[in-house]
Amino acid sequence: MNIILLSGGSGKRLWPLSNDVRSKQFIKIFKKEDGEYESMVQRVYRQIKAVDTDAVVTIATSRSQVSTIHNQLGEDVGVSVEPCRRDTFPAIALATAYLKEVRGVDENEPVVVCPVDPYVDDSYFETLKKLSVQAGKGEAGLVLMGIEPTYPSEKYGYIIPENKDAVSPVKTFKEKPDMETARKYIALGTLWNGGVFAYRLKYVLDRAHELIDFTDYADLFARYDTLPKISFDYAVVEKEPAIQVMRYCGEWKDLGTWNTLTEAMTEPVIGDAVLNDVCENVSVINELNVPVVCMGLKDMVVSVSAEGVLVSDKEQSSYIKPYVDKIEQQIMFAEKSWGSFRVLDVEEDSMTIKVTLNAGHRMNYHSHLHRDEIWNVISGEGTVVVDGMEQNVKAGDVVTMQAGCRHTVSAVTELKLIEVQLGKEISVHDKQKFELDA
Amino acid sequence: MNIILLSGGSGKRLWPLSNDVRSKQFIKIFKKEDGEYESMVQRVYRQIKAVDTDAVVTIATSRSQVSTIHNQLGEDVGVSVEPCRRDTFPAIALATAYLKEVRGVDENEPVVVCPVDPYVDDSYFETLKKLSVQAGKGEAGLVLMGIEPTYPSEKYGYIIPENKDAVSPVKTFKEKPDMETARKYIALGTLWNGGVFAYRLKYVLDRAHELIDFTDYADLFARYDTLPKISFDYAVVEKEPAIQVMRYCGEWKDLGTWNTLTEAMTEPVIGDAVLNDVCENVSVINELNVPVVCMGLKDMVVSVSAEGVLVSDKEQSSYIKPYVDKIEQQIMFAEKSWGSFRVLDVEEDSMTIKVTLNAGHRMNYHSHLHRDEIWNVISGEGTVVVDGMEQNVKAGDVVTMQAGCRHTVSAVTELKLIEVQLGKEISVHDKQKFELDA
Repeated sequence: MNIILLSGGSGKRLWPLSNDVRSKQFIKIFKKEDGEYESMVQRVYRQIKAVDTDAVVTIATSRSQVSTIHNQLGEDVGVSVEPCRRDTFPAIALATAYLKEVRGVDENEPVVVCPVDPYVDDSYFETLKKLSVQAGKGEAGLVLMGIEPTYPSEKYGYIIPENKDAVSPVKTFKEKPDMETARKYIALGTLWNGGVFAYRLKYVLDRAHELIDFTDYADLFARYDTLPKISFDYAVVEKEPAIQVMRYCGEWKDLGTWNTLTEAMTEPVIGDAVLNDVCENVSVINELNVPVVCMGLKDMVVSVSAEGVLVSDKEQSSYIKPYVDKIEQQIMFAEKSWGSFRVLDVEEDSMTIKVTLNAGHRMNYHSHLHRDEIWNVISGEGTVVVDGMEQNVKAGDVVTMQAGCRHTVSAVTELKLIEVQLGKEISVHDKQKFELDA
Repeated sequence: MNIILLSGGSGKRLWPLSNDVRSKQFIKIFKKEDGEYESMVQRVYRQIKAVDTDAVVTIATSRSQVSTIHNQLGEDVGVSVEPCRRDTFPAIALATAYLKEVRGVDENEPVVVCPVDPYVDDSYFETLKKLSVQAGKGEAGLVLMGIEPTYPSEKYGYIIPENKDAVSPVKTFKEKPDMETARKYIALGTLWNGGVFAYRLKYVLDRAHELIDFTDYADLFARYDTLPKISFDYAVVEKEPAIQVMRYCGEWKDLGTWNTLTEAMTEPVIGDAVLNDVCENVSVINELNVPVVCMGLKDMVVSVSAEGVLVSDKEQSSYIKPYVDKIEQQIMFAEKSWGSFRVLDVEEDSMTIKVTLNAGHRMNYHSHLHRDEIWNVISGEGTVVVDGMEQNVKAGDVVTMQAGCRHTVSAVTELKLIEVQLGKEISVHDKQKFELDA
C-alpha cells in the first residue's frame, strides 16, 4: 500500500502542549503496551505498519515539521516537503509526484491519502488496504472512505451514496448540515467524509498537469510558491463524475480539543500529579519535572508544559483558541531531527537553553552574526568543530564561540549541553549554515 | 517601641509558594501603592515603621530564615537567631536577652511580642504602642492584646476579662471552645488571643533566670540546644497572677490558607494569566514567566511557581497539607542575603542554576568536595576569587572551578550567572566556608 499522510499546520487548540512548532499530532499522550507514550503520528504510523509491513508511507507536510517527524518516526519514513502552504491540491499533487519519482511507485499503482491524526482502531487501516485495492481496479477516478455516523454532527461533511452496499457510487456531497438535516441523513445511510480517499497515481498526476504547467517533481517543487491555493475538493472531487465510496463502521474519533483528547486518554494522569479524592473526571498532563496538586476539581483538564499552564473546564476547553492566539511567546521546547532543546532562562541580553543531541546525530555547521555562545557539556561524549578545529568533548568541558565563528557538535553517546547565548539580538533567524567540509 | 516579631517555621499550607525554605510570611503577594508587591513580613515591618519610625524591631527566628529576612528587610533589622527550635519561651527569653545586650535596651523598658504575619490595618500597630505604654506602667507582669471576635470561631484561644473596659485584668483563659461555648463567650465580651503581649524587659529576663541556668545572652545562645521545649504560656502566662488585657477592635486576619490569603488579595491575578469571562471568583498567582490560561473556573485558586502547580477549589485548599507533605522535592528557588537562586535543570550528575547577586553583595568564600562548577556570567560586573586569585568578570566570561578549589564572587552591579554544577553527589550540604583573607 502506498499512503500519503497529510500532516497539517500548527494548532493552538491543545495549547500549552501544541504551539507554533509542535502541532497536536506530535504530542506524546497515548500509552503503549510497553508503558511508553506515543504521539498521534507515531500511533498511526505503527498501526499502518501493523496491517501492512511493506506500506510505503509518505508524510506531506511543511518544512517546519520535518525535524520532528524524523525525530518521532526515524529516517526511513518518506517526507514530501511543501516549500510553503498552498492548500490540499498542490500538496497532494506534489506528494504524488514525489511518490512516482523519488519512491519509484508505478503510475498505475493505487495511492491512499489520509489525515495524519485520526484516532482509530486497526480495522480502519484494514479498510484503507481495501480502499487501495478498490482504487487499483480503476472502476472510478476516486474511491472515498465513508464513515458510518455515530450521532447527528453539524461539523462534518456528509457523503450521500447511491446505495447501502459496501462499495457504492457517490450520489452527492453535503457540507455541515443543521441538526435536523443531519438526523435525516443518518436515517438514509449517509456517511461522514473523513478526508480519506484513494486513486491510481496517474489519475492525480494527470489532473495536476491539466491545472499546472510543470515537467516533473523537481520542477513542481521549484515553482511551488507560484501555485494557486486550491483545495483537492475544488480541483478534483467536484469535477469527477465517477466517484465511489467504501463504508467504514469502526471507531473513528477526531481529537481536536482537550475535551475529546482527554476522552481518549487511558488514564487520568500523565506525569507528576496528585489528585485528592474529591476530584472527579479530572485529566492532568504534566510535562514538567515539578508536581501538580489538584484539590476538589470536577470535569477539568490541567495541562502543564514549558510553554505555560492551562486549567479549564472540559466543555470550556473548546473555546481556548482566541485566548491563546493572543499570547505572544518564545518557543520553550522543540524536537529537532538531531534531538531536542528546551529554553531554561530568558534575559534581555541572554538566553540559556538545554540541548539534547541523540547518539550518532549532529547539528548543522552554522554561525550567528549577533550572538556569542558558550557550551557547557553536562553529560555524554561527542565532537565539537569550531572554525574547522575539531576537539572531543565530555561532561565538564566548556567551549566558547564568538559571534561569526562556525560551529557544530556531534554526539558519540547521547550528549547534553547547557548553551548560554549572549547578545543584543537573540533570534532563531540569526543563523547561517555551512557545509562542514567547505 | 521595642518589638519582637516571632517568625515561625516552614509551612506547606501555601505550597507551591511556601516550602521548606520559604515560609508563608515571605511570599510577595500584597500590592503596594507603587504597584510593587510585598510579603507579609515586609508589610508588617512597613506598618510598624509607619506608626513608630524609631521602633526597635527584632525578628526572632531560625537560622534558615536569616538570609531571606535580610533580603526582604535590609541589614538594619535586628535578628535574634535561635540555634535550633526550642518552643516559644526559650525563643522569647533569647530575643529579650538580645534586646538588652545587643540592642542596649534598658531592662525597665517595655517590650512587645507579636507574630510576624497578622493581616491587619495600621490601628493594630497603634494599639501595640498603647500596649507598650501600658506595660511600661508596671501595673501587671504582662499586658495582652485581646481581639474583639467577629464570629464564633472554634480554632482560637479566648481571653475572659474581668470587665469590658479598654484595659481590664484577665479573669481566665479558654482554649478552642466548641461553637456553642464560643457563641456564649462573644455575648460576654470575651476576646480572641492573637498571641500579642507586652512586658517590661526585666520581667521576662527574671523568669528566664528562674527557669534556666545562664549568665548572659552569649551564654544562653551557646547552651540553647540543651534548653527544655517549653511554651511561653506554660512557663509564664499560667503562673502569672497579674495579667491585663487591652481591647483591639480593628481588622485582624490570619492568612494561613489559600482560601483566606486570596480573600486578602486586592486583585484576582498576580503574574501572567488570562481568564475567560466564564471564570468566577478565581485567584491566580503565577511566579513563572510563562502564561496561565483559565477557562470556565469557579471558586478556585491556581498557584504556579518553580516548585510546582496547585489547582484547587478554594474551600478544599485548606486540606492541602497531607498531600504536599508527601512531595519530596528539590528546592527550586530561594532568597539569600546576597540575592537569589533558581534551579533551571536537574540531571543525574549535574544541576544548572541561575544566580542573581545584588549589587555590592558577595557569596561566602567556599569550596565543594564532590562537585566541579562552571560560572557563565550573563549580565552585570563583578569580581571573582578562585584559590586566592582575583579577576574582574562581565557578561560572556566563563570561570571553571574544580572540586576542592575555593571560590567566591562579588557583584559591582547586579550580577547574573548561570552556574553549572557537575559531580556524582550534588548536595547543598557539600560546602566548606573559609575566611577570604586567610
